[in-house]
Amino acid sequence: MTTPTTPPILPRIQSPADLHALSEAELRQLAAEMREELIGVVGLRSAHFASNLGVVELCLALHLAFDFSKDRLIWDTGHQIYPHKLITGRAAQIGSIRTKGGLMGYPNPAESPYDLFMTGHAGAAPSTALGLHAGDLLMGRPERYSVAVIGDGAFPSGIVYEAMNNAAAKPHGRRFIIILNDNKMSICPRVGGIAYYLDKARMAPEYNRANKLVRKLLPHIPLVGDQADRLLQQFKDAVKASVHGGMIFEELGFKYIGPIDGHDLATLNSYLEKVKAMDGPILLHVLTDKGRGFEPAEKDPVSFHAPAPFQRCEEGIIPLKSSSTRAYTNAVSDALFAAMRRDPRVAVLTAAMCEGNKLQKIRDAFPDRFFDVGICEAHAVTFAAGMAKAGARPVVDIYSTFLQRGYDHIFQEVSLQDLPVVFCMDRAGLVGSDGPTHHGSYDLAYMRVFPNLVVMAPGDAKDVAPMIDWALAHDHPVALRYPKANLEEVQRDPQPIELGQAEVLEWETDGMLIALGAQVPDCLRAAERLRAEHGLRVGVINARFAKPLDTNTIVKALDECGFVLTVEEGCLMGGFGSAVLEAANDAGRSTTHLRRLGLPDRFILHAERDEQLAEVGLDVDGIVRSALELAQHLGIAPESTATDSSSARSAG
Amino acid sequence: MTTPTTPPILPRIQSPADLHALSEAELRQLAAEMREELIGVVGLRSAHFASNLGVVELCLALHLAFDFSKDRLIWDTGHQIYPHKLITGRAAQIGSIRTKGGLMGYPNPAESPYDLFMTGHAGAAPSTALGLHAGDLLMGRPERYSVAVIGDGAFPSGIVYEAMNNAAAKPHGRRFIIILNDNKMSICPRVGGIAYYLDKARMAPEYNRANKLVRKLLPHIPLVGDQADRLLQQFKDAVKASVHGGMIFEELGFKYIGPIDGHDLATLNSYLEKVKAMDGPILLHVLTDKGRGFEPAEKDPVSFHAPAPFQRCEEGIIPLKSSSTRAYTNAVSDALFAAMRRDPRVAVLTAAMCEGNKLQKIRDAFPDRFFDVGICEAHAVTFAAGMAKAGARPVVDIYSTFLQRGYDHIFQEVSLQDLPVVFCMDRAGLVGSDGPTHHGSYDLAYMRVFPNLVVMAPGDAKDVAPMIDWALAHDHPVALRYPKANLEEVQRDPQPIELGQAEVLEWETDGMLIALGAQVPDCLRAAERLRAEHGLRVGVINARFAKPLDTNTIVKALDECGFVLTVEEGCLMGGFGSAVLEAANDAGRSTTHLRRLGLPDRFILHAERDEQLAEVGLDVDGIVRSALELAQHLGIAPESTATDSSSARSAG
Repeated sequence: MTTPTTPPILPRIQSPADLHALSEAELRQLAAEMREELIGVVGLRSAHFASNLGVVELCLALHLAFDFSKDRLIWDTGHQIYPHKLITGRAAQIGSIRTKGGLMGYPNPAESPYDLFMTGHAGAAPSTALGLHAGDLLMGRPERYSVAVIGDGAFPSGIVYEAMNNAAAKPHGRRFIIILNDNKMSICPRVGGIAYYLDKARMAPEYNRANKLVRKLLPHIPLVGDQADRLLQQFKDAVKASVHGGMIFEELGFKYIGPIDGHDLATLNSYLEKVKAMDGPILLHVLTDKGRGFEPAEKDPVSFHAPAPFQRCEEGIIPLKSSSTRAYTNAVSDALFAAMRRDPRVAVLTAAMCEGNKLQKIRDAFPDRFFDVGICEAHAVTFAAGMAKAGARPVVDIYSTFLQRGYDHIFQEVSLQDLPVVFCMDRAGLVGSDGPTHHGSYDLAYMRVFPNLVVMAPGDAKDVAPMIDWALAHDHPVALRYPKANLEEVQRDPQPIELGQAEVLEWETDGMLIALGAQVPDCLRAAERLRAEHGLRVGVINARFAKPLDTNTIVKALDECGFVLTVEEGCLMGGFGSAVLEAANDAGRSTTHLRRLGLPDRFILHAERDEQLAEVGLDVDGIVRSALELAQHLGIAPESTATDSSSARSAG
Repeated sequence: MTTPTTPPILPRIQSPADLHALSEAELRQLAAEMREELIGVVGLRSAHFASNLGVVELCLALHLAFDFSKDRLIWDTGHQIYPHKLITGRAAQIGSIRTKGGLMGYPNPAESPYDLFMTGHAGAAPSTALGLHAGDLLMGRPERYSVAVIGDGAFPSGIVYEAMNNAAAKPHGRRFIIILNDNKMSICPRVGGIAYYLDKARMAPEYNRANKLVRKLLPHIPLVGDQADRLLQQFKDAVKASVHGGMIFEELGFKYIGPIDGHDLATLNSYLEKVKAMDGPILLHVLTDKGRGFEPAEKDPVSFHAPAPFQRCEEGIIPLKSSSTRAYTNAVSDALFAAMRRDPRVAVLTAAMCEGNKLQKIRDAFPDRFFDVGICEAHAVTFAAGMAKAGARPVVDIYSTFLQRGYDHIFQEVSLQDLPVVFCMDRAGLVGSDGPTHHGSYDLAYMRVFPNLVVMAPGDAKDVAPMIDWALAHDHPVALRYPKANLEEVQRDPQPIELGQAEVLEWETDGMLIALGAQVPDCLRAAERLRAEHGLRVGVINARFAKPLDTNTIVKALDECGFVLTVEEGCLMGGFGSAVLEAANDAGRSTTHLRRLGLPDRFILHAERDEQLAEVGLDVDGIVRSALELAQHLGIAPESTATDSSSARSAG
């Protein structure tokens, strides 16, 4: 069966039920085929890679031990879902992963009943799985198991601890199992107390030696009577827990098992069967290698977390395309680096996104002023507030969508205290193939409600460094947002950044495009086309600030321009356009000649960012279309020039 | 010195420096005087009580051991700050606490340099204090200590664990000390794994006996060689940590000391001095009694967390006024109770607010469907999502301001999955004497951006039960908000609740008041006055829904009424009024005759709720004033009828 001519097994696996018919050897072959599939197909595009190679056996073992058509399985974060997709009827579509219309790179209930929650943010799996179990109990299904698989990188996230604390409150912890998938990595190398703790727990062989020694000694300790028995039990428990390294979990009310080899199917099967027979809550500590089975990834799991597309060759891999273009992320990192050289008070914080936020250079050059707090966004914000109170100038460099975890702390520890914390909100707007969980759609709406906060967005590359410098010099909290996009530059001598001041790039009176953020260059292109193709003289304003707004310039545009179109890569509800409506209303101005272009009130699926922008009408075509429609509606442009009658305003 | 005729010491304490001149006996007398002050003065109004009585000695000891004019002290949550206020120059003003213009019931940097952060939400102190220490290191002040005092009730909050995990990353944990103030209570009795753990750790005497036994045994264990030494050390560490009950903290990288008696000044002093000399991070476990020194509070610390005003008498206490009026909180609790009797799928979750949310009856009647998850709002939301996915109908009953902790989970686990979780957002709007940290100002703005969510607010008592029932029958997430206010009833036969349908109470065409939530009765009063005093015929709409909006009714009002005033007890930025502006803009309607009344872009200080409503123009007078001003501005009412020329629209 395992000879090179054996027919492939993977195509025969239509559902996890098919796994039960396989022999051990066939399962091993299947694991190898799954790895080949991942390396061959997934390597062709930017995707989560090393973490998926690491959980192939664990995935098989889980589907063998449980019946997840009834039992509950939550893969934390969800980026390691690919092997699970391969054996739940989606192997044939795996090549489409992360592309428009293809499989999602995360769990997706719309694809399969085996995907329960669409996820992407780390740490929530134990809570979710515990809730599922509580729900099953309530609905009269106590026999179902609930399993959360969570990486050691996500483990320090506060909600994990909240869930573990709550799991001890039986009965809803009874058939609740956490699988700690310990690969010694977050996206960046993991940090903090839990990391040290797990490192110690991994020293299994040494602990086993200690274990034997203790077993030999214990019978020789002379104790009599009831109390002595109890003391001896405590003594034994302490030693046992120390030996097994799981006391931290045991003390939280869990039964701790492990650590065990996460690449040995027989071991996994045997322990999962044991665990099923136990009364929970249970934590099973599984050791895996990120990138397992693909040498370049095993050697460099950080780069291979989500590598650029590549092909294998004799010598290892060949990158398929190198991205030589600079992104907003790079410009922000460079500006922060320069600021840190200039000002010793500046510190940079990341929540495990050293790679994603391109902070390696800062980490290496300023180790004392660089803080990776792990996937702990709430702590990152609060820690930064403490630093600011002590006189430092902390920068929380973070993805917009992940900063949502710190919402309450932005309120209480930053806004309420009016402390000079700078938020660099990366991946603001549409993020492309990561899809709905990763879009930074809400930051303008959620940030601008807080008193004392300044909220701004660079309109192009030339705005980035001046804005960072301005933010660091401002004695109050500032949030900057910028997209996952390549830098563009508007040819001009930029006006200096001033609080609440927009930059008028072109003043024309047929219409005005007021853009906040990186749509500014596209607005200039749109204005150009509106003039060339439709004879409309349309100006462009680089708004720069969502709060405070440049009310004077906005009112002037409303007063002087035939139409006004606000453009933002953020939710239409409560966003920049709404702020403009509010300002106009406060100033007593009519806004019947104003329309707002932005993200609609629905989730935008995974696709290339350009495709997503086009879908919601935020590309040049969409801006032209919206402006033209508005101009026609108002009688500024003749109806006949319409190229497309469908409105892009509310974009679906 | 301690005879009954001894002159009082408290008035002489102008700053913590004055404590050093006192003898042990004088310190004990001071502690007694502080308790007298708290019982006598604070008992006179609704205030945090038992927790303040519990930390008198701890507060004195901390100020004796540290110099908090330089060192950093953060009281977690901050409700136990009263003794600290008494000895930091504010004893004379303590009688004004929680009243307009008086001392705040939480730390307030505007009152004293000894209050570093204005707080009120639980669990953030370790993060904040760690950040302060990191900032001090960066700013060249490594000698400063940073101390966080946190109760066992707040301890399960996820951010505590995030901070502890990060503290192990030296050097910023070096002079970082967490004081775990363990009184065995949250606001309600504490729950979960940490609670069990601490209960065990409190068994100090028994552990001490075990300790002695182990010490006696260890030398008799025969081991030789290097490896044996290392194993023995591990063995000893395990036993030691088990004996002391602190391994969970030790494993996270902390040095654990305790538990120690938190009411014995000499013990506290001696341990704090020891701790100062150690290399951190350190967790000092202190045992205190909530309500210490006041028998009724010691016996019933739950009721005495924040009791109604009382006076002492021979037999105990006499309540000064009993509140026989029913609040929105009661009506919601009753409606939930009725729903639970009807529908076995309904479950109610609280984050340690069983008392505040009046859920005792539900807890007692439906123990299997009532979940107190502790002060873990992120987990509460996620756990509820899991339950909903399993088919249950969970209700997250929570204060609006605390739900902010669950923002990201409302997004990912509820809105994105479109699961039928019901949020009952209590204390929405202005909350009175708790002040800025407790207002529920942002929920309308932060909830309505999420796809799939319905956001609504009862306009009066009659709306409550029908809305709860409607929400539980709706197959998508629903958020209800209601204030900390007594119920009022509009005399009418209410229209049934229908998705996105407002209820027109009076249709008049001079002007229209569109109110979302409990301002509806005041709007009717305002309309009455506008007619009686100014001859204006003004209608009132009970909006009911912030999302989806009743666009038809809103557009009709804009089309037919001379003016439109939106009224909401929520932030003006991005709130209900903005939603109305957006809807009007989408419908191509002018809004120059519309104004929005709501909460301004600043923090509203503590005062009675009525005073706060008046301050922002949300009382009947304010509504009349705003409506009249708008009518005059538009020429609907003559200028001469103006009673007050100052605009309340943006209310400061």
